[in-house]
Amino acid sequence: MALTVTLKHLSPELQQALQNEMEKVQQSLKLNVRSKFSGIRDVIDDVIDLNGKMLRPLLTIISAHFGSYQADKVVKLAASIEMLHMATLIHDDIVDDSKLRRNKESAQSKYGKDMAVYAGDFLLSKALTILNAKDYDTDHMVSLAKAIENICESELLQYHSKFHFMNVKNYLRVISGKTAALFAVSMYAGASESNCSEALSKKMGKIGYDIGIAFQIIDDILDFSDDQDHVGKTVRNDLKKGYYTLPVIYAIQGEHESVLNASEGELLTLIQKNKGIEKARELAKKYTKRAFKRISELPANEYKVALESLANTLLNRSY
Amino acid sequence: MALTVTLKHLSPELQQALQNEMEKVQQSLKLNVRSKFSGIRDVIDDVIDLNGKMLRPLLTIISAHFGSYQADKVVKLAASIEMLHMATLIHDDIVDDSKLRRNKESAQSKYGKDMAVYAGDFLLSKALTILNAKDYDTDHMVSLAKAIENICESELLQYHSKFHFMNVKNYLRVISGKTAALFAVSMYAGASESNCSEALSKKMGKIGYDIGIAFQIIDDILDFSDDQDHVGKTVRNDLKKGYYTLPVIYAIQGEHESVLNASEGELLTLIQKNKGIEKARELAKKYTKRAFKRISELPANEYKVALESLANTLLNRSY
Repeated sequence: MALTVTLKHLSPELQQALQNEMEKVQQSLKLNVRSKFSGIRDVIDDVIDLNGKMLRPLLTIISAHFGSYQADKVVKLAASIEMLHMATLIHDDIVDDSKLRRNKESAQSKYGKDMAVYAGDFLLSKALTILNAKDYDTDHMVSLAKAIENICESELLQYHSKFHFMNVKNYLRVISGKTAALFAVSMYAGASESNCSEALSKKMGKIGYDIGIAFQIIDDILDFSDDQDHVGKTVRNDLKKGYYTLPVIYAIQGEHESVLNASEGELLTLIQKNKGIEKARELAKKYTKRAFKRISELPANEYKVALESLANTLLNRSY
Repeated sequence: MALTVTLKHLSPELQQALQNEMEKVQQSLKLNVRSKFSGIRDVIDDVIDLNGKMLRPLLTIISAHFGSYQADKVVKLAASIEMLHMATLIHDDIVDDSKLRRNKESAQSKYGKDMAVYAGDFLLSKALTILNAKDYDTDHMVSLAKAIENICESELLQYHSKFHFMNVKNYLRVISGKTAALFAVSMYAGASESNCSEALSKKMGKIGYDIGIAFQIIDDILDFSDDQDHVGKTVRNDLKKGYYTLPVIYAIQGEHESVLNASEGELLTLIQKNKGIEKARELAKKYTKRAFKRISELPANEYKVALESLANTLLNRSY
């Protein structure tokens, strides 16, 4: 499997090349998370088998191709980034007490909170230790650890705004930290480790950031989709938990404060009435557009086509 | 406060010098864990106020004095190590569902599991990011992350042996990972960052390891003490939770398998009958002795006296 995202308009050769690299990332992931302890192995194998889209490693691989690509080095970096992401997913499920993750039983539900806490910590530390200081720029290790800080702070900000009104600015702060920051590092570090210029690496980071913001807004919109199988998680999950994401924020903006006590049904009516989904789409489009503009400025390269294709797949999802 | 451990036989000057350095560690800790998010700040301030013994940073400070001591650098390293330790305490309490930590309400009980999960993750990542790659040997950053891995694996091994018989070898594996590994890094990194020779730094690491093992065995013995105030946590906590530590292991060794179903009272009787406490003390003494032997081989230095004094205080506690 490995390359789970369909990329259109790519030559069969490029498709195959990306497929091969992503399989290497998958192998590196499996190889590097081996724990002496079978309990940890079970949790981690399960999370790997959840078959996430592996977007972050894919972004790393693609952006690394804009420089002098060194397969072993980039593959391990990409695996490390996916590990960090996996760790945050495992810990998020503890906080949310989630029973499901991508339609399968979550680690904390299946193995208990103990396993979930330590397996997440194990992955966090492992993600950093596999980036041997001799081969990698240690600033990137620090950037990765900083991305975790951002994710923690943002998840907490979100959690503590439950059932409260949050303005668009704070919503953007939350998704910037919990999603866009790691997308940005994925692309920045990929380019920078391949000796791209600092200017090009930074541009890659900005593209990753914009893709991340747009991706998260779309994800939040999809939570209101009626097609549960398509999305792969329980719908209106956020709303039920009191996470008022962008469509709700737009819907209740300017309404009387009492709407905060509205039922799920009333909120859905308000979203329709006040065009919450449409307005959220508009904001996602703004970031999508900016991402495409920056991508268009990248040096011509077959991986530029791959990046355009990936951004298209991610940001023009059926929403 | 800061220097909470009484060190005998030290000159007032040395006592004051150590006191000053530990206060700097405390300040560095407070300064470096500032989160933009007040929720995280509350949890962390609480954990800092628990006034732990700060043993690991003290060991770092002492061992760093065997080389060319650079205050700013060592103080930050020591603060980073204490942060890691704090993170693991916060996460342990989630797993154990502990209501108390050092006689105060635990973070997860007071602020909820969400805060505890993310505050722990935040501290873990912060501990690594404050060690700027320009100033510190990145191998030490990796050693610290590896210490977290060890702690996670050992906590899980312990958790999954609950109410089961564990042999002495596995018990030592557990405490080696959950306690001794970080004690070892604390001393090794302190010495190494102060440009001690690799041989001296390694010896420091071994001293830290032995102190850690002996310290943990003694801690486990103290769990059977009847003097709750003295120990600062609920007594027979381990036994109630099904953590069969060394005194129990010695007590049930060679007994019929059915003792695993014995009540708390019956186990206590067995411990007395089979001299579980005494045998555990013997093993602690073995490690204590080895630590003192290695300390005696260190270059003469006023900090050697401090280390001897600290080891004496820790390893000859009232058990």
